[in-house]
Order: sequence, then structure tokens, then C-alpha cells
Amino acid sequence: MGDRIRGIFTPHMVPLDREGQINEAELRRYINWLIANGVHGLYPNGSTGEFVRFAPEERRRIVKIVCDQAAGRVPVLAGAAEANTRETIAACETYADYGARAVAIVSPFYYKLSAESVYAYFREIARHSPIDVTLYNIPLFASPIDLPTVRRLAELDRIVGIKDSSGDLAFMMRMISAIRPERPDFSFLTGWDNVLVPMLVIGCDGGTNATSGVVPELTRNLYDLTRAGKRDEAMRLQYRLLELFDVALYSADFPEGFRAAVELRGFQMGASRQPLSENQQVDRAALQRVLQCILSDFGYVQPPPEGCALRTGNLEEDRVDQIVTGVIKELRDRGIA
Amino acid sequence: MGDRIRGIFTPHMVPLDREGQINEAELRRYINWLIANGVHGLYPNGSTGEFVRFAPEERRRIVKIVCDQAAGRVPVLAGAAEANTRETIAACETYADYGARAVAIVSPFYYKLSAESVYAYFREIARHSPIDVTLYNIPLFASPIDLPTVRRLAELDRIVGIKDSSGDLAFMMRMISAIRPERPDFSFLTGWDNVLVPMLVIGCDGGTNATSGVVPELTRNLYDLTRAGKRDEAMRLQYRLLELFDVALYSADFPEGFRAAVELRGFQMGASRQPLSENQQVDRAALQRVLQCILSDFGYVQPPPEGCALRTGNLEEDRVDQIVTGVIKELRDRGIA
Amino acid sequence: MGDRIRGIFTPHMVPLDREGQINEAELRRYINWLIANGVHGLYPNGSTGEFVRFAPEERRRIVKIVCDQAAGRVPVLAGAAEANTRETIAACETYADYGARAVAIVSPFYYKLSAESVYAYFREIARHSPIDVTLYNIPLFASPIDLPTVRRLAELDRIVGIKDSSGDLAFMMRMISAIRPERPDFSFLTGWDNVLVPMLVIGCDGGTNATSGVVPELTRNLYDLTRAGKRDEAMRLQYRLLELFDVALYSADFPEGFRAAVELRGFQMGASRQPLSENQQVDRAALQRVLQCILSDFGYVQPPPEGCALRTGNLEEDRVDQIVTGVIKELRDRGIA
Amino acid sequence: MGDRIRGIFTPHMVPLDREGQINEAELRRYINWLIANGVHGLYPNGSTGEFVRFAPEERRRIVKIVCDQAAGRVPVLAGAAEANTRETIAACETYADYGARAVAIVSPFYYKLSAESVYAYFREIARHSPIDVTLYNIPLFASPIDLPTVRRLAELDRIVGIKDSSGDLAFMMRMISAIRPERPDFSFLTGWDNVLVPMLVIGCDGGTNATSGVVPELTRNLYDLTRAGKRDEAMRLQYRLLELFDVALYSADFPEGFRAAVELRGFQMGASRQPLSENQQVDRAALQRVLQCILSDFGYVQPPPEGCALRTGNLEEDRVDQIVTGVIKELRDRGIA
Repeated sequence: MGDRIRGIFTPHMVPLDREGQINEAELRRYINWLIANGVHGLYPNGSTGEFVRFAPEERRRIVKIVCDQAAGRVPVLAGAAEANTRETIAACETYADYGARAVAIVSPFYYKLSAESVYAYFREIARHSPIDVTLYNIPLFASPIDLPTVRRLAELDRIVGIKDSSGDLAFMMRMISAIRPERPDFSFLTGWDNVLVPMLVIGCDGGTNATSGVVPELTRNLYDLTRAGKRDEAMRLQYRLLELFDVALYSADFPEGFRAAVELRGFQMGASRQPLSENQQVDRAALQRVLQCILSDFGYVQPPPEGCALRTGNLEEDRVDQIVTGVIKELRDRGIA
Repeated sequence: MGDRIRGIFTPHMVPLDREGQINEAELRRYINWLIANGVHGLYPNGSTGEFVRFAPEERRRIVKIVCDQAAGRVPVLAGAAEANTRETIAACETYADYGARAVAIVSPFYYKLSAESVYAYFREIARHSPIDVTLYNIPLFASPIDLPTVRRLAELDRIVGIKDSSGDLAFMMRMISAIRPERPDFSFLTGWDNVLVPMLVIGCDGGTNATSGVVPELTRNLYDLTRAGKRDEAMRLQYRLLELFDVALYSADFPEGFRAAVELRGFQMGASRQPLSENQQVDRAALQRVLQCILSDFGYVQPPPEGCALRTGNLEEDRVDQIVTGVIKELRDRGIA
Repeated sequence: MGDRIRGIFTPHMVPLDREGQINEAELRRYINWLIANGVHGLYPNGSTGEFVRFAPEERRRIVKIVCDQAAGRVPVLAGAAEANTRETIAACETYADYGARAVAIVSPFYYKLSAESVYAYFREIARHSPIDVTLYNIPLFASPIDLPTVRRLAELDRIVGIKDSSGDLAFMMRMISAIRPERPDFSFLTGWDNVLVPMLVIGCDGGTNATSGVVPELTRNLYDLTRAGKRDEAMRLQYRLLELFDVALYSADFPEGFRAAVELRGFQMGASRQPLSENQQVDRAALQRVLQCILSDFGYVQPPPEGCALRTGNLEEDRVDQIVTGVIKELRDRGIA
Repeated sequence: MGDRIRGIFTPHMVPLDREGQINEAELRRYINWLIANGVHGLYPNGSTGEFVRFAPEERRRIVKIVCDQAAGRVPVLAGAAEANTRETIAACETYADYGARAVAIVSPFYYKLSAESVYAYFREIARHSPIDVTLYNIPLFASPIDLPTVRRLAELDRIVGIKDSSGDLAFMMRMISAIRPERPDFSFLTGWDNVLVPMLVIGCDGGTNATSGVVPELTRNLYDLTRAGKRDEAMRLQYRLLELFDVALYSADFPEGFRAAVELRGFQMGASRQPLSENQQVDRAALQRVLQCILSDFGYVQPPPEGCALRTGNLEEDRVDQIVTGVIKELRDRGIA
């Protein structure tokens, strides 16, 4: 029974080239940057990584590149869900060969399955996987993994943790209460960046947080401060992270806001495989300016040339205000306003 | 502008062999039986057909077999959703080559996308597809396609209909009101078997109904009776279909109840790729006996040897009652009771 | 065991005077008009009648006025839910004295109660009520009454029907299947105007429909046509009713749109006890013009002076279009446009 | 601008006598006990206090008794929602006369109102209330009060805080971010006991917690420890509170589990006005034994005579285990087992 998985694992995006194919060089550069900025681990093929929009062989290639580039500097938690248990187990075998620390398997999606089916699904995988498995609970998108099911699955040694993206603190506390006494090696990770500090306070081991792909320095700092008991400082960062997460999450269809944010850190992410309408492209440009303002507050990037409008927390309003600021700047530059 | 798509299209299941692979011979036999029993069309790679549990190349093979076996006797509506628009368009091209009448594309799933994204997704596909496209709205499993979006998409000639599995009559009426005047060739199909007659009464063109894979004779008869204005007779069949659909849908995780039902009609369906726990296998056996009782009421199959318990409409209760009936029969046979 | 309750019962609103008090004279005039226009019964203290916004003694007064004014011409189904079973039973006694045909009791609301609590609640009332009780299921607002609970409650003779406002046809069919064989006197009424014809087709006895308080002639006609088997004519009316219901229901917080609509038929309804913001007052005026256009299509009222914009079925759009039409008319009148 | 409302306010239940009427003597005794055990304030007519099950005059009487008995020792936050704004404002006036510190007004319920209506409702009340108003957001039961609405309402001086029972930490953080800079006197209270410590960590001022009516010593201690920065000790209490809250909340229809729990502390609460079925009475007895086990772990009460079964956190299972323990004890006492 090994150490439990701890820290911030980045569910990173995958840069695409102009043809919409995986941009390997940029992905490797991005992975290097993430590691250099302090993330504890990498999590390819997560929801933020748009795993469902890649073909099976592409998912394998992504993990291969990431494991290779990480080169043991940080552990890799590889998203391994495929169309069915047989394919998923095959992916587990492959990712074990690639040197991943563990796989993360999202609960079955599309169909809304009962707890018993969710149990049968993970048990089948756990029985045949040559690599440690973490459960991935994201009830917004996939069949929920409920508390009795987590308990039953925690009886299997191969299952070593859960990543929970429900953001429900009470649920996390119930899981920790029920499982930690029997399985001190079982890891509890949160995917809900907005409550990362409170989750750590109640006993979580870390997080798989989309914002760590944008501001890895900050999420690492927040993690370290919380671990060191400096919770007021940590909470100040948490409040700032909340704004970034809200804007990136709710101002565009997930995970497009995170793509726009990562671009601001200097990476060529390319266009998503989910097409954007003309309206959405306009909205995205405005969103990106708001994100730039938020990131410039942190000191990570320069503010946009037009300056930053006062943010209200009302996402729609903030986007419009920033557009207006840009227009006024433009008019001023032309000597009109 | 061609005739609109009408009638009952069967979203059929795919028989699997002992290794869990596509059982081509049995699939061909099943297709023949469906056509012989009156279905108007075939719909491979639907939700009932467990399209998400097959690999991309398997989905192609399924459509190939079905088109080949149908051999022009009935039209094929081929489920063509793949991981992204590029892959989906490639599938459309392939299915056009195979001779499908049209493709059906489910709205993007996993992520819950906005109406604007749903629009952009279908528009992209419609612009490049060489084959007619029907929208597939199933808000239980996938991003909903709302009324304004259907209206916008109906402006594209390549989009020729919608299959709606919400079961919401008012929504269907709103769509018909908004679109039929401009697009008399646009087809409205319902996937909610429980309200098939009322849907036809309000103006639907037909249905893509899982029960038509179990009792094709009955769904065809119900359709014909409704079209002929014999609505009281049709409603009597509708009430019986309701029981079958409810039991098959709610007594096991979808679509396992339909697999159990199709087996009763004499087809070797094999085990699902979604594993069943031991508890679920017991439940499935009891469910299948209840289904056998329902189908024997129709005269399609023999009742189970132990006879049929009185059904109450309470699914759990009915399953238990049927188990008890079996146990009593067993005891009587042994001279105990 | 008497005849079952049938027909269209109007869940009418209550006119208020300038002080916000019950306008008895206008209420009596409105009741007369409803009866003259063919409604089969009256249903005071329903959701449309804003029962929760009146004090207990006001609810009693409303029923007293309505029973008195109906004077036996049509039966009265009196909403009798009070703060607890004791108070509700007292209301039942009072309404029996007033001459109501039956009471309608909404399922407990505010708290979301379990099926067992819902059962215990209605059983307690049924045991002590001196007047027939109809269940009122409106899961949008109150604890749902599920199928097993309706079945258990239908074992009590005092409970003689259910008014269901879920709009779920399959649920209605399940109830009719389960209960009608044992209780031929049990009445099934729908509160979902959008599917009134389909509900009658599947076997409902009638409806408690908010639109019957606006267009009683039409709902009566629709009912008679359906009963007479003239379902195509009935469906044509149903499609028009759908538009009216949608606009009245979704363009303002329920039931304000119905208040605006009833005013168009010539009744002084007064301001709701739920205050309107300034924005809402502007929206309401535009909504009322759209309603006027719809009602003028029926020939019940004159169109607004500015004429009617083309309606799209998109409620927000229609309201804006109608405002624009009014503005253009205004400009033209002033010789500007 | 006064100090903001802080601390633990108990949304206490109301003891009833055998006739189901308010048991004033027991209520006074209970209030004394709560104050003696450290609660910072009292909150009559909350959801736990079953305000909707009392008549308007009873709600007034409850506040009168509580204010009188508190006698200035602790502040009273009086639930004042009535059938409409006029009645609610009248209640505000009365409660000001009784000496309440402020009123708490739940968002309109039954109808699901838009944000604009919620705004208009509270604004109307705030304009006329002679006493400070706190908003009460409980989206499970009533129309939600969203962030923009809280911001708009926080512009009114009369509104001095919000009690939020959503349990959503991110929502609470958004409110604090948006409002505290402008309104340092605005109070943020949580009604979700399961996350009381995390809520205090993120900046809440206190809570209105049902469990504080059962274990006031513990909630006070938890509050003080958190304020003193002893968060590990606080979290240990939080985990125990979680178990109590979960069992009391989810093992019976709210708030019956809390009634059962308060009885264990020695108060005669009487039967709820919501009737219990025979099944529910059996379940309640078993639940109460589990609650007794939890409270005996705290040292507040003796364990049940049969001892305590091991608790699993699975509520249904725990209840059954405790029943079995009781039966075994019974059999042993009779010399059978």
C-alpha cells in the first residue's frame, strides 16, 4: 500500500494546430511550463482536456506525449475511459506501459446508470487493470457515484482514490468519514476550484483543477499556504481564484473559457473541435479581455491596451463593460471621444 | 424537396456473440424479422442500439450490415454521431455510400452545451454532409435542442427532420407550428413510445421507438389504426404498449430491459458491454419473466411455465410477484406446496 | 357512488379593488360570464386563483361568493388547503355548508414531503371531510403525488378524483390504468391546457384549465368537439390554445399573464398582491398587446390600434415586435415615419 | 449603521400540547435552555419551526412568547413571512413592537418567481418595514434569490443581511465579494449545518442552524473554536455535527428528525401537525434510537438500553441495525438469545 496521491494535478488542455490536430510541440512546451510553475502532477484526458472530442488513438497519443515529457518529474494521472470496459482496460494497460502513476476513470456517461451499474462497471475495470485506478465523479456530466458505491469500491485495493467534481463539501466529508479509517491510502481530490481551500480544510488531499492550467503558480501557492495553516492568506487567493474560475467556467461553454485563458499565458491552443458561431467568437474576444484583466491583477500578464473596466461579478455585465472600454479607447485613439 | 420521412423506424439493438463482438448473422436475421413484421425503416446506432459502447469502426460496420441487409426494402436512418464534427462528417459520407436514406445526429453530449453551441455544431455538419440529416433531441442524455435552435436549423435544406425523445407533446406542437408552414418536407418523429398515439394525433410523422424492436407488429398496427382514424382501437394498443415500455425502460438500466425483451422474440442478443452485477442478473431474470407475461398477453409468445402473477403496474412489486409465482410453481412441482 | 366529475372547471382569478381587497361585485359578474360561456364548473382557490396570497378568512369568503353566485347552475370545486390538516378539515366542513360539489386539496407544499407523508396527509383529511375530496397534483409547486400514493388514496371512498397539472400523459395513463377498473367513479382532470385534447383522447374526464377563464367559449368548444370525435377540428383549436397558454404562462410570472388576459375580456382584475417592478409593468403592457392580438385572431376582441406584428412563437421576440409595431404606429400618427 | 448580526441563531421548533396547540410553558423552558447553552440568538418561525403549519395569529403568538422570554438576553430574529406583502409588513410592525432585533423573510414560495419578482417583493417590504430585514434564501423550498438580486437589495439600508440555506460555498463567497465592500454591516449567515466551519472560514458571520436547537453547546463551541483559529478542533466537531445533521435531516421528512432529536434533550415536543403514517411512526422510533446513540457519543444523553449498533453512515442501514440491536437485547432479556 503506497503513499496516497496528493497535491494539485492539472487537467490540462491539448493545443491543436491549424488543421485541428494535436500540436505536439506546443503540448510539450505547455507541460514543461506547468511543471516549472509547480503543479504536483498532470492529468491528461480529463473533462477540461476535452477527452470526448478525441478519437481513441488520439487519447493514447496524448498520454504518451505527456508521460514522455513529464519524464518522471511529476506523476501522471491518465484519463482512461473508453467506449466500454474492454477498451478501457486496454487503455489502462497501455498507460501502465507509458509510466502513468494511475488512471482516472469517469463514471459511465450518456446513459444515466444506477448505482449498481456504476459499481459493476468500476469493479470490472479494477479487477483487470494493471495500474491503480481513481474514480472520477462529475454528476453534472456523468452518472453519479454515490456514497455507498464509493464505499463498496474502496474495498478493492486497485482503486486508490476519487476525484470529485461535484463541489459538494458535505459529500466529500461523508466520503472521508466512511473510507479513510479503513483506507488511509485512499486519496480524495476535488475538481471544483471555487472551494479548493475549504476542501483542503476539511481534509482533501488535493485537487484536479482546471485553473491550475492557467495559473499554476497561484494554485500551488494556495495549496502550500493552506497546508502551512496560513488560511487567511490562502482564503485571499481563493477569492481571486473564484473570480477566475467563474469567468472561465460560466462565460462560455466549458472548457472554451479555459482555452481562452491559457492562450493569455502564451500558448497557441488552436480552435476547439466544437465549432463556435459568429456570435460566440465575438463573445469570446470580450471574455478574453476580461480574463486578461483578471490575470493582470495577479501580475501574470499585462492588462489589455484599453485598460480594465471595473468588474462587478456579473459575468454578462463585465463582458459588456469591457467591450465598451475597448470601444471608448478606440474612439479616443482616433481623437473622437 | 423530397417526401418527408414517415412511419416507424426501429432503433434496433445489436446482437453480440460470446466474445462480445458483433454477431453479424444474428443481426441480419433480426433485421429480416423486423422488416417482415412491418417496420417502416431501420435506425442503427441509436440510444437503444448502444452506439456509445461501440468503437468508431464498429459503428460503421453496423450501418454497413444493416444497409446491406435492408437492401432497399426499407430506408435506413443511420446514427452518425462521432467524437467531433470532422469525424461525424466523415461518417455521414460513409453512410451515404452505404445507401442510408439519412443520418440521425444526436446533440452533443457529456458537456452540457448552450443553444448557440448546439446550433454551431449542427450547422457545421449540415454544411458538409452529403446526406440528409435529422436532428436527435434527447434531453435526458444530451444537450437539449431548444425551439429557437430547431427553427434556425430548419433553415438549412440538408436538415430534414427531428427525432425528439423528450416525450413532451407541447414542445412537439410548438415545433410543428413553427416549422411545418415553411418546411412541409420536415419530419417530426417521436422517440417516446408511451405517447406514440397522442403524438401522431397532434401531427407527428412517426416514431423511432424501442418497442418496435420488440413488438414490430403491434407498433405498425397502432400506427396504421391511428392513421386510419380508428383512435379508440389505437388507444387500446397504446395502453398495452405503455405497460411494455414502462417495464422495459424502468426495470433495468436502459436499454437492458429491451435486450431482455428482444431475446423473448427468439434472438440471441448476448451480454451487454455494460457489465451486470450478480444482483442485477437476478433482477433481470425476474424482469424477463414479467416481460414474457406481457408479450404472452399479446399472443406473441408463450407464458412462462409458472404462469403469470397479476400485474399491478408497480414495477418492483410485479417483479417480486413473478418471482414468488415461480417459487410456488417449483415447490408444487416438487410436491411440497 | 355518484357520477364522476367531468368537464371543464375554471380555476378562476379573483378581481381585486384599488385597495387590493376582493372586488365582490366584479367577481360575481365574472362568474356569471364564465357560466354563460359554457364552463362546466368553477374552481375557486386554485393556483391560478392565487390562493396562497389570500388570508384564510378571505379564501372562505371567495368560496362563499362563488357558491352563492353559481347558485347550483354549475358545480363548485373549492380549493380547501390550509396551514395544516385540522384547518383544512375545518375548511372542508365550511365548503360543504356552502354547497360546493367537492374540495380540491393541493399536496403539501413548501417542504418537499415523501410519498408516505403525502399519503398520511390526504388520508387524515379524507377520514374527516364531510365533502368529496379531489387530489391536486402540481409537482412544479408542491410535493408530488406519485402513482402508488394515488392508488392507495383511491381506496378511500371520500377521495373521488385527481387534478393533475404535471402535463405528463404517460403518468395520466398509468393512473387511469391502475384506478379506473376499481373506481369507475374516480375522476381524472388535467390542469395542463397545452395538452387538453390529447389528455381527453387518452381518457381524461376533463380539465381545470386557466385558459378557460380567458376563453371559456373555446375550451368548451374544444371539449365538445373532442367528445364528439371531431378530433381534427379539436386539434386546430388545441394549437391555438397552445399559443395563448404559452404566452400567458411564460411571458410573466404565473398567473400574472392570465390576469392580463382576463382584463382583455372586460373585467377589472386590479393589481396582483405580488408587486410588479417598473420593468415588469412595461413588459406586462407589451404582453397584453400580444395577448390582444391572439384573442383578436379568435374574434373575441378587437386587435390593438397599432395592429399586430407577425408572431413567431418566440415569446420575448413577439413582445419586442409588438412594442416596435406600437412605436411605428405612434410615429406614423405623428407624421414622423 | 449598526453592528452586523453575528453568531448562531437557533431556528427553534415549537412544542405542541396534546391538542396540537402551542405549549407555551414548554416553549419558554426550551428558550431558557437554549440561551443557557450559549446560542447567540433565537429565530422563531423558521423552516425548522414549521412556520407554514401555523395560522397567522399563532405565528404572532410564537414571536411574542419568544421575545418576552428572551427578555433582551439574546436578540430575536423573527420569521415574518405572511400571505402577501401587506400582511408581511403588518407582521414586521408587530415584531418591532415585540422587541425583535430584525425579521427574516423567506423568498416567495409556492409559485416559482423570477428574480425581478423576488426583487419587487423584498423591496416593497423593505420600504415599509419599521424593523431591519434579513433575506432568507432557501432554494430547495422557495424562489431562489440570485446574486444580482441580493446586490440590488443590499442597496436598501433596511435590508441588513441574508440567511442562505443553499449550502453553496461559492455562492456565499460571491455574495461576500460583491456586497461586503459597500455594506460592511451586511450579515451573511448560513443555514446549512453540514458546512458551518467552512462557511465561517470563508467569512460568514454565523449561522441559523437547526442542530443548534439540539446541541447548542456544540454549535457554540464549534463557532468559538473557529473564531479562535482552532480549526482542527473545530473540524473535529464539524464532522460529528455532519452525522447528526444528516441523520436528523435525511431519515425523516424535515423537520421531524429534529423534533425527535430535541425530545432526547428532555423537551416534550408533541406530535407534528403533519400526520405520520403507522410506518413512519415505526421508522421514527428507530431513528430516535440512532439519534440517541449519536448524542450519547457527545456525552449529552445516555445511550439507549440496548446499546448502540456500529454506525455506517448509510442512514437506512443504521436504522435497521439499531432495530436489530434492540430486538436482540429484548430476546436476551427474555433469556431467548
